[in-house]
Amino acid sequence: MKTIRHLIDPEDFTKKELDALIALAKKMYLNPEKYNSICTGKILATLFYEPSTRTRLSFESAMLRLGGQVLGFSDASTSSVSKGENIADTIRVISNYADIAVIRHPKAGAPKLASKYAHIPIINGGDGAHQHPTQTLTDLLTIHMYKASFENQTVAFCGDLKFGRTVHSLIRTLARYNLHKFILISPKELSLPDSLKEKLIQNKVLLKEVSTLEEVIDEIDILYMTRIQKERFLNEADYNRLKGSYILNSQQIKNAKKDMIIMHPLPRVDEIAYELDKDPRAVYFEQAKLGVYVRMALITKLLNVG
Amino acid sequence: MKTIRHLIDPEDFTKKELDALIALAKKMYLNPEKYNSICTGKILATLFYEPSTRTRLSFESAMLRLGGQVLGFSDASTSSVSKGENIADTIRVISNYADIAVIRHPKAGAPKLASKYAHIPIINGGDGAHQHPTQTLTDLLTIHMYKASFENQTVAFCGDLKFGRTVHSLIRTLARYNLHKFILISPKELSLPDSLKEKLIQNKVLLKEVSTLEEVIDEIDILYMTRIQKERFLNEADYNRLKGSYILNSQQIKNAKKDMIIMHPLPRVDEIAYELDKDPRAVYFEQAKLGVYVRMALITKLLNVG
Amino acid sequence: MKTIRHLIDPEDFTKKELDALIALAKKMYLNPEKYNSICTGKILATLFYEPSTRTRLSFESAMLRLGGQVLGFSDASTSSVSKGENIADTIRVISNYADIAVIRHPKAGAPKLASKYAHIPIINGGDGAHQHPTQTLTDLLTIHMYKASFENQTVAFCGDLKFGRTVHSLIRTLARYNLHKFILISPKELSLPDSLKEKLIQNKVLLKEVSTLEEVIDEIDILYMTRIQKERFLNEADYNRLKGSYILNSQQIKNAKKDMIIMHPLPRVDEIAYELDKDPRAVYFEQAKLGVYVRMALITKLLNVG
Repeated sequence: MKTIRHLIDPEDFTKKELDALIALAKKMYLNPEKYNSICTGKILATLFYEPSTRTRLSFESAMLRLGGQVLGFSDASTSSVSKGENIADTIRVISNYADIAVIRHPKAGAPKLASKYAHIPIINGGDGAHQHPTQTLTDLLTIHMYKASFENQTVAFCGDLKFGRTVHSLIRTLARYNLHKFILISPKELSLPDSLKEKLIQNKVLLKEVSTLEEVIDEIDILYMTRIQKERFLNEADYNRLKGSYILNSQQIKNAKKDMIIMHPLPRVDEIAYELDKDPRAVYFEQAKLGVYVRMALITKLLNVG
Repeated sequence: MKTIRHLIDPEDFTKKELDALIALAKKMYLNPEKYNSICTGKILATLFYEPSTRTRLSFESAMLRLGGQVLGFSDASTSSVSKGENIADTIRVISNYADIAVIRHPKAGAPKLASKYAHIPIINGGDGAHQHPTQTLTDLLTIHMYKASFENQTVAFCGDLKFGRTVHSLIRTLARYNLHKFILISPKELSLPDSLKEKLIQNKVLLKEVSTLEEVIDEIDILYMTRIQKERFLNEADYNRLKGSYILNSQQIKNAKKDMIIMHPLPRVDEIAYELDKDPRAVYFEQAKLGVYVRMALITKLLNVG
Repeated sequence: MKTIRHLIDPEDFTKKELDALIALAKKMYLNPEKYNSICTGKILATLFYEPSTRTRLSFESAMLRLGGQVLGFSDASTSSVSKGENIADTIRVISNYADIAVIRHPKAGAPKLASKYAHIPIINGGDGAHQHPTQTLTDLLTIHMYKASFENQTVAFCGDLKFGRTVHSLIRTLARYNLHKFILISPKELSLPDSLKEKLIQNKVLLKEVSTLEEVIDEIDILYMTRIQKERFLNEADYNRLKGSYILNSQQIKNAKKDMIIMHPLPRVDEIAYELDKDPRAVYFEQAKLGVYVRMALITKLLNVG
């Protein structure tokens, strides 16, 4: 029997596989009609144990645009699947209803556990504070679309670098490429965990840590903004003190490079001023669009079709 | 770039466009097979910030019967889209997932706001007490199917004419046609707002206001019943006093014309007795059916296909 | 006009019809590609007035695998359909949106009532403690797949035989076939209702009642396990005393026949030890898979296609 491939962690794929996936996503973006029925007769199950409308709809759109079909649930509280049943049993049942599944779960490790019992490929659609690999793939594709090569790029991460799952996952993945420099911009309280910094240092990447955007804005090629989420703070006073510190606006990018790109995983709350939406450097809505194509490529690859 | 058309208010369409839409809906009703794949490859997003199962399923059925596909959410409370994100950002993201969207929202004006940021056509699926244009289109098509011409018709509205969004929207639209007479039947407390009455008078439509069905039943060609919703009343005593006043039954239509039609936007609670369901004049379930065809025509027109 | 067939109670079908349905399901299982577009253009409505994710997804998978489409709701509390409207009106409206509907409802009799007003075939997807006919069909198909003939089989039911809807429904249906013997294994407090026992006795089926698995395990061809649901008990002390009594594990099936099959409607909580999952006699996950094929056959038959 053929081995079933899953995507639980971005590191499940070799660099070569990642590159092939990104290349396929690009082709799909440029010529979507060519792929609009390669998943005919296939079913994607969207198993969302916590709501994440954007991620769910991005996957559903991807599968429908490939000619496939979708079933699932969008919130375990209105579902009966969690009533005393473990995820191992659930996924063995769902394996009979669908050909591939994406699992979003509040508990870290749940998609991985499910993948051990599944008879179909499992995609991790976000597991708590742990991983969100298709966001990472989306980010990779976005960089590829705007920057011809990863080499010589200076990428800056700004905001909550301590708790941001998206940032951790992307940093770990980008560390596998030959970037020029990483710049970490965060309040001290929300700086990148040491284990990740060490990983970067081991990989001989240039690393700079600062606490304001101002001092580094003219060096940046790729600026990755993140939200400082209220729920990550231990007390409200800390939240209120810090929340305004990392808001991007026209004034702040005055000295930025003309071809810098501003990325954001969305939803934003107020960390990027609306006035920037029309700036050609703001690519976050395009990034959301690219997320559909990277998911199309991923589904295609895991189903081994086309 | 081609202008994207939306349907937020029935008045977004010229009378000529309305007539063309109704004519297309009729054709689709008579020959649905001809249209069953003109939306192949297209995706409708159903964005329901408040539940409205009937409206949502009518749209989904319409899109599926055109060969298209559907994704979305049925209740914002089980969705994550409202978490601090404004609808402008949401719709810019969703514009990448779907080719057309219907938005139901508790706040008046939300679909209009969304349409300003969308890259895809937006249909207003009901925004609070404000508008529900596809119900109006459904009503128009129903009248067209049963009455060869709008001219010389006497149309009566019965029930809550003060708060009824459906009634206001239909009255405004019918005022654009040459009807013979409008009859308004309601308790004084729930009579049609003056601004709408004035609009009718300006258009030189005959207007009659009464407080009982009895005194006008023999004049009516089209009787539009509406529910007196409990939630519209300021106190329960008022509700209890009035709720029984406008209930239609066999006795009450004894003197009605043989070809009068009884319409209702559904759901009914008790404002039409079940005994009338088999009366050939009761067309409210057929009206619900016609709602699918008018939505098929609308989607087709806004997507500019077929 | 042709009569519309529904499936509300397994006894709605003659034995001959049941046999034909099972035969079709088998064919679909062996050669699914042959049937993957016989429902093109058809829509299934899944009307779940209470959540039952497994049942709902099984139906959705069945319809999609036939080339059809699906719309509906998964929980009446996030739906607006129950707001004061009776199911008779709801189903008359839904009849315009779909070609066939499955109804899950907490109240016994609701699907039957709906079927009286529907213009489309209605399938009972479980109505309270009353019936769950597609589970019964799934169980029948499972027995057919593993046992060449029903004759001479000894079937045992273990667990909550007093309240178990699944068990009652299957026993009534199996009583129509020439089985060799029924064995009922349950605590006295949860034994099969007398009316059902009498039905078995009238049909001249051998009947044996015991309170432990141990004393009969070597006689059994088909062992049907059920969960003892906490919510069925009047007090917690009873629940705690009995819940552990009917747990199946390797030790308990030591003396079982080599070709005995272990069935379970799922979800299980702890009534079957995980160590049995790899035992070839454990067929409960395969049973869930067969549920899709039997529903494919049912939809096909009720729609009168293919």
